[in-house]
Amino acid sequence: MIVVLTGGTGGAKFVQGLMHVVPACELTSIVNTGDDLRWWGLHVSPDVDSITYALAGMLSRERGWGVEGDTFQCLDVMRRLGAPAWFQLGDRDLALHISRTEKLAAGKTLSEAAAEIAEAMGIESCILPMTDDRVETQVQTAIGELSFQEYFVRERYQVAVKGVRFEGAENSKPAPGVVEAIRDAECVLIAPSNPVTSIGPILAIPGIREALMKTPARVAAISPIVGGAAVSGPAGALMKTQGLAVSAEGVACAYSDFLDVLIVDERDAAERAAVERMGIELRTARTVMKSDADKAGLAWAALEIARSAAAVER
Amino acid sequence: MIVVLTGGTGGAKFVQGLMHVVPACELTSIVNTGDDLRWWGLHVSPDVDSITYALAGMLSRERGWGVEGDTFQCLDVMRRLGAPAWFQLGDRDLALHISRTEKLAAGKTLSEAAAEIAEAMGIESCILPMTDDRVETQVQTAIGELSFQEYFVRERYQVAVKGVRFEGAENSKPAPGVVEAIRDAECVLIAPSNPVTSIGPILAIPGIREALMKTPARVAAISPIVGGAAVSGPAGALMKTQGLAVSAEGVACAYSDFLDVLIVDERDAAERAAVERMGIELRTARTVMKSDADKAGLAWAALEIARSAAAVER
Repeated sequence: MIVVLTGGTGGAKFVQGLMHVVPACELTSIVNTGDDLRWWGLHVSPDVDSITYALAGMLSRERGWGVEGDTFQCLDVMRRLGAPAWFQLGDRDLALHISRTEKLAAGKTLSEAAAEIAEAMGIESCILPMTDDRVETQVQTAIGELSFQEYFVRERYQVAVKGVRFEGAENSKPAPGVVEAIRDAECVLIAPSNPVTSIGPILAIPGIREALMKTPARVAAISPIVGGAAVSGPAGALMKTQGLAVSAEGVACAYSDFLDVLIVDERDAAERAAVERMGIELRTARTVMKSDADKAGLAWAALEIARSAAAVER
Repeated sequence: MIVVLTGGTGGAKFVQGLMHVVPACELTSIVNTGDDLRWWGLHVSPDVDSITYALAGMLSRERGWGVEGDTFQCLDVMRRLGAPAWFQLGDRDLALHISRTEKLAAGKTLSEAAAEIAEAMGIESCILPMTDDRVETQVQTAIGELSFQEYFVRERYQVAVKGVRFEGAENSKPAPGVVEAIRDAECVLIAPSNPVTSIGPILAIPGIREALMKTPARVAAISPIVGGAAVSGPAGALMKTQGLAVSAEGVACAYSDFLDVLIVDERDAAERAAVERMGIELRTARTVMKSDADKAGLAWAALEIARSAAAVER
């Protein structure tokens, strides 16, 4: 089984790439749920949704989130009814949130809901939310503490950030199957997601970081930082709050206790020495994903690199 | 204030007519909620929705329910997710249910939710759900007891009916303002709605029938039965289960303890003697509403008749 830890748009693109090079039934995605929010009374799980749509071939290419070709009729009326409208749910997209909310209200867990939805959509690949417990990423900013979506979508990450915390993480546990998937994986890939707010919440769940340290599988991460800046989104500003350099080295640092190999863009090969000083192998690939071919190419390279990497002795 | 008791598509059409002849702020609709259902985890209130859409100028002409020109993208995905799809919610329509459900979850009553939604939509007319309590119309049929929507929509009223009951009615009370509206009305109109399952639930709420008996206002009903059959829907079969003739006389009988005047189609003028024997004045009008002009014409006639009717001495 190929296991990928993922969150955000970079993670969804990487999973789209993996679909081209790994049989669906051999891929397990462990997905960030720190961005989840209650919106219009519905339980929205943006990263789980994106991976679900990616695996179902429905993810919007243009937006990178939601359903390709979706309409926004309901949103129009919600706006008219005075509801907040800064977080946009499409009409087709709504079905997932309505269905999940109904399942949760019936007493099912988030991972049971995700599995049922995936099965109904004909997805053969396994989607595991990181936890069934409520863990909320909170971003400390110049205008106060915000939920991740308030910071990312409402404020378009234009406010200064001071810190990040994962509310509820310390008392949470990994969803069923998460630790086992990491333990039994052929290799574990960390998607080119934001290390702080996409992968960070996953690592904050007690037991997951330990599973990554203990697994006999190679653990390979793809750096979302290219040429000293994030490919997209606020990863740079968020990494700084954690004392991490906005560089491949900073990414290696975030994962240094469990990572075997870091895959960086060809432009960042000069960081080899700094990364290898942490005992982490550095390999290069074309990491910027624009076309389908880019995605598949990166997925292919990541798999090859992970399979051929040496285990780090710790 | 003109007060109308309403439910179903006939009621919504009649309210559309009233909008042409009564200033919005002088119209109060008391609406059946016995058809309400929990659907996909959302609180759907079909008759309140129809009146809301009618008053907002959004009611679908073609379907007689839901929003004009609505799309069904969410429904498509819900179907794919394995959700039941026999009750169809459009994408624009969904906003009302999502909004209402959220308000109810926040502790608001059904009538508060209805008022807030109406205000947000710019409706100046007053919409009063009959009760804030849960009252559910149950139809006893050859295939067991069904909720009204199961009988009406899912089974398309093609199963034999044996009886009707209003679960929860005996312990319910009228929503705030209902009894006062009837008491203080200039006149009360009973829409050409199904007397058993649209008006029947309203009359089953303790205190409403009494208010209709006591009000100094004239109470006028428009018969939904024309030429011995319902204009639309299952009113005929349902009236039979209540021992009511499927005729103007049967409608008069259902309302005999509070009605001053029954307005029947010109084709039913021959029932005058039978209706007047109950002490109820019979007047004729063109009661079948196809065009906007039909609706306005009937509303105009009903108002004129109610205003000029003599009070029945009881």
